Amino acid sequence: MSDIEIAQQAKMQPIIGLAHQHYGIAAEHLDPIGHYKAKISLEYINSLTDRTDGKLILVTAISPTPAGEGKTTTTVGLGDAMNRIGKKTIMCLREPSLGPCFGVKGGAAGGGYAQVVPMEDINLHFTGDFHAIGVAHNLLSALIDNHINHGNALDIDPRRIQWKRVVDMNDRALRHIVVGMGGAANGYLREDGYDIVVASEVMAILCLATSRADLKARLGRIVIGYKSDRTTPVYARDLKAHGAMAALLKDAIKPNLVQTLENNIAIIHGGPFANIAHGCNTVTATKTALKLADYVVTEAGFGADLGAEKFIDIKCRMSGLKPAAVVLVATVRALKFHGGVAKDALNQENLIALQQGFANLARHYHNITQHYGLPCVVCINHFTFDTEAEIALLQNQCAALGAACVVSKHWAEGGAGAESLAVAITEIVDNREPAFTFVYDADLGLWEKIEAIATKLYGAANVTANAKVKAQLAAWQADYGTFPICMAKTQMSFSTNPNSKGAPSGHTVEISDVRLANGAGFIVAIAGDMMTMPGLPKVPAAERIDIDDDGRITGLF
Amino acid sequence: MSDIEIAQQAKMQPIIGLAHQHYGIAAEHLDPIGHYKAKISLEYINSLTDRTDGKLILVTAISPTPAGEGKTTTTVGLGDAMNRIGKKTIMCLREPSLGPCFGVKGGAAGGGYAQVVPMEDINLHFTGDFHAIGVAHNLLSALIDNHINHGNALDIDPRRIQWKRVVDMNDRALRHIVVGMGGAANGYLREDGYDIVVASEVMAILCLATSRADLKARLGRIVIGYKSDRTTPVYARDLKAHGAMAALLKDAIKPNLVQTLENNIAIIHGGPFANIAHGCNTVTATKTALKLADYVVTEAGFGADLGAEKFIDIKCRMSGLKPAAVVLVATVRALKFHGGVAKDALNQENLIALQQGFANLARHYHNITQHYGLPCVVCINHFTFDTEAEIALLQNQCAALGAACVVSKHWAEGGAGAESLAVAITEIVDNREPAFTFVYDADLGLWEKIEAIATKLYGAANVTANAKVKAQLAAWQADYGTFPICMAKTQMSFSTNPNSKGAPSGHTVEISDVRLANGAGFIVAIAGDMMTMPGLPKVPAAERIDIDDDGRITGLF
Repeated sequence: MSDIEIAQQAKMQPIIGLAHQHYGIAAEHLDPIGHYKAKISLEYINSLTDRTDGKLILVTAISPTPAGEGKTTTTVGLGDAMNRIGKKTIMCLREPSLGPCFGVKGGAAGGGYAQVVPMEDINLHFTGDFHAIGVAHNLLSALIDNHINHGNALDIDPRRIQWKRVVDMNDRALRHIVVGMGGAANGYLREDGYDIVVASEVMAILCLATSRADLKARLGRIVIGYKSDRTTPVYARDLKAHGAMAALLKDAIKPNLVQTLENNIAIIHGGPFANIAHGCNTVTATKTALKLADYVVTEAGFGADLGAEKFIDIKCRMSGLKPAAVVLVATVRALKFHGGVAKDALNQENLIALQQGFANLARHYHNITQHYGLPCVVCINHFTFDTEAEIALLQNQCAALGAACVVSKHWAEGGAGAESLAVAITEIVDNREPAFTFVYDADLGLWEKIEAIATKLYGAANVTANAKVKAQLAAWQADYGTFPICMAKTQMSFSTNPNSKGAPSGHTVEISDVRLANGAGFIVAIAGDMMTMPGLPKVPAAERIDIDDDGRITGLF
Repeated sequence: MSDIEIAQQAKMQPIIGLAHQHYGIAAEHLDPIGHYKAKISLEYINSLTDRTDGKLILVTAISPTPAGEGKTTTTVGLGDAMNRIGKKTIMCLREPSLGPCFGVKGGAAGGGYAQVVPMEDINLHFTGDFHAIGVAHNLLSALIDNHINHGNALDIDPRRIQWKRVVDMNDRALRHIVVGMGGAANGYLREDGYDIVVASEVMAILCLATSRADLKARLGRIVIGYKSDRTTPVYARDLKAHGAMAALLKDAIKPNLVQTLENNIAIIHGGPFANIAHGCNTVTATKTALKLADYVVTEAGFGADLGAEKFIDIKCRMSGLKPAAVVLVATVRALKFHGGVAKDALNQENLIALQQGFANLARHYHNITQHYGLPCVVCINHFTFDTEAEIALLQNQCAALGAACVVSKHWAEGGAGAESLAVAITEIVDNREPAFTFVYDADLGLWEKIEAIATKLYGAANVTANAKVKAQLAAWQADYGTFPICMAKTQMSFSTNPNSKGAPSGHTVEISDVRLANGAGFIVAIAGDMMTMPGLPKVPAAERIDIDDDGRITGLF
């Protein structure tokens, strides 16, 4: 059965009743969105302040491959398993983006028997958060061009506007456009472009904001570009945009409750790109879950070099969150890919490639335990084609590394298949208080922070940048020197070359550009190409997505 | 008090309970969206087929002026008044567009004590219908450029693509753009542009669709452009787009229930521009309301020459709906404007200007009673500055015309202020079966249909068009000859000159362009300039819209 067929057979329970039964949340604190989704009121969340926090478990992965690793699936499977063994656990996930849904990827709500439901709703519009973010973003865009059109009193340099427009769609034709054509009535001609909504700074801001007031202040701090002196920033608050933007986000700021196939509570809220943003769900959602449950399982985007690093150095640093342990997800298939096997040969046993590809896992494990200071369990997300010899080899290699390693079958068996993983991870978090550390101190210079990430985590020998980039960082040092770095690097490799598999070392990381995300509160350092607007493939998933006369949807994976 | 302050003092009742109490709708048939909005399931709507229909009352207005006439306010006030006098009445309204909300207009959920609530939600995102329409539209756009990028097997002429992109924002810089810049990875360079979401054909289609199957079929019939032979149309179904588009509209197709300040049920669903579309709420909503209530009060966009004509000739013709009576809304201020008074002098008594401006009302009244064959009550929507002498003059003029005329004070007094109007209108619809007629027969030639509208309703002496337009209509005659005409003309005047007030006659209507809306099922005839993407004013309403730390919104009118 496909994911959507499994999801459509789920026996969902009305979410209001479920939230009350599991966590004692009264109906008045929830805004229902249909019968199986609900938003939690901020007033209720604020009322939980005095409660003790649960334990936070981060699910991350080896460097992604086309083979798929199953981070979301593992997060859901582990959460279901923990609830099965009597540990009250909430899962915190990211909202899927519509764009990839119509491209290659299909849905993004877990897979097999480890899914969140209602799957179609979660993949299509969900509770409207991304639409609200998109409109808030585009309102600021419209206000910028409107301000210039009506006399440009702020002296915005139209050539130095860095605030693009957004749409929740994979649409390569919009990457680079010219706006304002057609004469005086349509304003001034200038170059512009579109990003996908998940790449919006508004998304990053929503995910890091701690209150309505903080949200509005951050929106006001967004730097949209520079004045004609080339250096004086123009803020969203100069355009009086932040109040209306915050009003548009009045509901988007509230976390969303849904359930897993096994009727356990999951919170799905926020979904920033793990590229130019931190790639984690909202701080509000994670903190709320920690107040409600004894354990919270959450995920971070891409591999542990990107998503987990930002989870630690950006999300945890800004919010005071402290993870208790990490699950590092790997598959036999993906490790063979890292060992040089082509995509169409991954289902054949190949012990040599597996052994070679293991270097990728080993580097991530080393980073998590040594540089983040966190206990780590390796989860082998089991695939049908995995052979016994492969599993045994992988377990031996983990043992040689000193790593706990659990084979988990949640995709095929749901929570029951992940009980060993749940036992392993709860044993750690119930008994250890980790000496959690950041990769760099906030006081370190901006350039030195980039060097710390690249040399410690990526295995790079050195970091380079042209004079312009170095001058820009130096110029920002005074005002923004304490900001963390948000690295934008290919997720496919520890290096900046996506084809460099395994665990490359001694390479050079070149920083091609840096950007100030002043509202989010970090500096984006771009290493290599960064794609903030994907394209559709030759045969997009959209072609097979359909709905019948009764409203039943097919073709979403 | 401002509209939003009045709205925030409303004593709303949970919508699920209210719907059950007033109309016996069980909770299981409603998808709640928060506590005060709900979507009605199509299965429930289908279960009502055998019920008798209520009476349908259309609220329309004189030619719009900057003074404001209050069509939505009157629709709400009349509905509340009818419920007060014991007539079970549902109001059917259009969803507001976000764009104008941040421009000049502010909110669009009625005004004063005749409003629908929750006002902030209705104005900001509401239940996400417009966002779904926008994404469905833009998915088709992305699929077009993606198809061309991947080899253009359909031989689409990139210079003849008529499917633009949409955003729910007033953003003049997007009216005319160039996409596909930046080299081969970003596809092929071509000219494009953005319309506001309400101008999307997807919006028109959603409003006219009678089922999920009809919706999908109509989406598939959309003509996105032409092949390189210049004449062969390319349909959305050729791109296999319609299934995914319909899936995106899975919830948007369901009508939305809200309540008035007086806790009566209103359905707000769909909101197409009354310009390149028909400007009425959805057929599904109107039909559902007619099955539930004894009376339904609905509105059509712009003045009676545009909105009411399309209500009759497009919406009623396609759906089989039959109005029982019409309310023609006018204000003393607006009639003085039609009589030549400047906007800032409208609060001063001016009987001569009022008498002159009355010609506009008289023409609309004549059209409604003679050309649509419908009984009509003139509603004078009372403003604070109206003098007794002005009201008396207006009443005398209506009497001379043989028109029933009621002064209504619903803005200041709510339903209580519109009871006389309610009595007048129910007396008509309870006792008369109107000999309702279309303005033209479906069999008439496309050009002759345009002539019928212009000469009968607009008072034009003749209609002109260049050879290209005439040739295009002739070419469409065989395949689309039975389609109704959707006139796109300035709403400010009976002529194509927005500054020609009152009731001009003997003028020439020039059709500058014609467009095929094959999914919606009509031909758009453009007379004069047509704005499908508004701009923001120098000081946009967005600047004053704000939200406080507790989530209370201010600055929406």
